[in-house]
Amino acid sequence: MRYARYETDGRVRLGAIVGADVVDIASLSSKAPETMLDLIGAEPAVHEALGKRLSDPGVERVSLEDCRLLSPLPNPGKIICLGLNYADHAKEGGHAVPDYPALFLRAPSSMIGPKDPMILPECSEQLDYEAELVIVVGRRCRHVAAADAGSVIFGYTAFNDGSIREYQRLTAQWTAGKNFDGTGALGPCIVTADELPQEASGLRIQTRLNGKIMQDSNTDQMIFSAFRTIEILSQIMTLEPGDLIAMGTPSGVGHARRPQVWMRDGDTVEVEIEGIGTISNPVMAERLSA
Amino acid sequence: MRYARYETDGRVRLGAIVGADVVDIASLSSKAPETMLDLIGAEPAVHEALGKRLSDPGVERVSLEDCRLLSPLPNPGKIICLGLNYADHAKEGGHAVPDYPALFLRAPSSMIGPKDPMILPECSEQLDYEAELVIVVGRRCRHVAAADAGSVIFGYTAFNDGSIREYQRLTAQWTAGKNFDGTGALGPCIVTADELPQEASGLRIQTRLNGKIMQDSNTDQMIFSAFRTIEILSQIMTLEPGDLIAMGTPSGVGHARRPQVWMRDGDTVEVEIEGIGTISNPVMAERLSA
Repeated sequence: MRYARYETDGRVRLGAIVGADVVDIASLSSKAPETMLDLIGAEPAVHEALGKRLSDPGVERVSLEDCRLLSPLPNPGKIICLGLNYADHAKEGGHAVPDYPALFLRAPSSMIGPKDPMILPECSEQLDYEAELVIVVGRRCRHVAAADAGSVIFGYTAFNDGSIREYQRLTAQWTAGKNFDGTGALGPCIVTADELPQEASGLRIQTRLNGKIMQDSNTDQMIFSAFRTIEILSQIMTLEPGDLIAMGTPSGVGHARRPQVWMRDGDTVEVEIEGIGTISNPVMAERLSA
Repeated sequence: MRYARYETDGRVRLGAIVGADVVDIASLSSKAPETMLDLIGAEPAVHEALGKRLSDPGVERVSLEDCRLLSPLPNPGKIICLGLNYADHAKEGGHAVPDYPALFLRAPSSMIGPKDPMILPECSEQLDYEAELVIVVGRRCRHVAAADAGSVIFGYTAFNDGSIREYQRLTAQWTAGKNFDGTGALGPCIVTADELPQEASGLRIQTRLNGKIMQDSNTDQMIFSAFRTIEILSQIMTLEPGDLIAMGTPSGVGHARRPQVWMRDGDTVEVEIEGIGTISNPVMAERLSA
C-alpha cells in the first residue's frame, strides 16, 4: 500500500495512492483509521481489508493532480537522522568511512510536505539539499536484533534533509543547521515495506535541482542498512510507531561541489526514490523586513 | 506558582506546590486546565485566579511525602540542549569557550521524572550526571530579540542531562550518548518565571552523588543567558509552548575527574537548583538477560 495525506475541497484526508490517483481511506470503510499514526499502528488485517476494497471498481478515485499532497506524517514522535551513511558522501565531506553512524535529531518544527516551499532563511546563503531514504517505524520496540528488524518497520518514504551549512558547521554539533523551519521535506507517501525490496535496498535515489541531476546513487550503497540501523538505534532508545529514521545522503551535495552550489529563491528541488516517488519543493527566501 | 504532576490514590494529578504540600489544581476550579501543556498555554488570568484560590484556608493540601512526583512535562514538543554553556565545563572537557552554543536535541523517550530510576544501560559503564537549568517555553514564537525574550518564557525547571559518555564520543555527534532511555531526569516542578530572578540568573546549581557534592556552581556563570539563548534558537526554529531548553552544565562532571567517576547501580544522584528544588534519582542497572 502507498499511503498519503492530501487536501481536496478544503479538507485534509488520508488516502491510498493507486497509480496516478488517490482514494480517500474514509470511503473504503467506516472503521478506517483517521490519522496516519493510527494507520501505522493498525493491525495487518486492517491494511489487508483496505487493500481488498481498493480494487473494487466502484471506489471513487481522484487524480493526484487535483489535490494538494501534504506531509504524510506531520507530527512524528522523533526524527532520527544518520549523518554519514554513504561512503562516497563521507569522502566528499572529508570524513573517514564510519564504523558507527553519526546521529542527530530533527525537530518536527523543521519539517514540511512534499510540495511545500523550502525556506532559505534570511541569515544564510547556504541552503543545501540531501536526498534520503526514511524508515517509518511501525512497532514500539527496544533491543531489536538486525535479523528481527523487518518486523518493526512499517514502511519507507523519501526525504530532502535540507541543511543550512554555515549553521551546521558553527560548532562541532550539526543540530543547528539541520533544524531551520521549513527545511526538511517528507513524502510524497509512505510505502509499506512489502511493496519494496528487503530493507528498501537497490533503489535508485536522486536529487534534481531545476531539473539537473545533482545526486544519483542507489540505496544499496548505504554503509548501515535499514535492519542494522534499527539494531543500533534500538540499543539506545525505544522506537515508537511513527518515528522516522533518515538514512543519510549520497555524494553530490552542494557544499562539496567546486564551485559550491547553493539553492536560491525560485529554484525547484526534487528528490526521487525508485518505488517511492518524488518530492518537489520550490525554494523560497524568507523575508523578515516588512 | 510552582506547578507539578503527581500521583495519589492511583490517579495522575496536576498540582500547585505550596511549601511542603501540593494542592490538586482540579480542586481549585472546575475550569482548571487538565494537562501541564494546557496550563502552560493558559492566559495569565488563569494563573492569577489559581494563585488567589491557593491562599484560601479551606483548600485541601497533601504532603509531598505522601505522593509520587512525576515528570512535570512528559511529552514536550522538543527538548533543545546547549552543550558547553559554562566556561569552566568547556575547559574541563578540553573545549575553547564557544561564541555560539553547541546544540543537540533529546527525544522524549529518553526522559524520566524527578524520582524515577535513572538507567545505566547494559552496554555501558559510563553513565554521567549533568546538572542543568531548563527554560520552559510559554508562547509560540520565532525571531525573538533577547530584549523581548522574557515574554515567551513560561518558567524554569531542573534537569539531570544523564549522558552515556562512550556513546557520546563514538562519533563527533553527541546525540547517541544523550538519548538513552531513562537517562534525562526532569523536575521536580515548573516554577513560573515571576517567582525567580530575571533569566533565572544567580541561582546556585548542584549535583550530589550519594550525598557528596560533585557540581557546585551558579547560573550566573552561563556563557549564553536565557534571553540570549531564546534569541539564538528562535532565529533557527519556531519555539512552541512546552518546548524545553536545557542550558548546559557547570564543571565537575564525572568523565572530567581524575580518577573518572561513573554512576553505579544503587547510587542516588540529586540535582538541586536554588528556588526550583531537587530531583533525586536512584541509579539502576539495566538487566537484559532473563
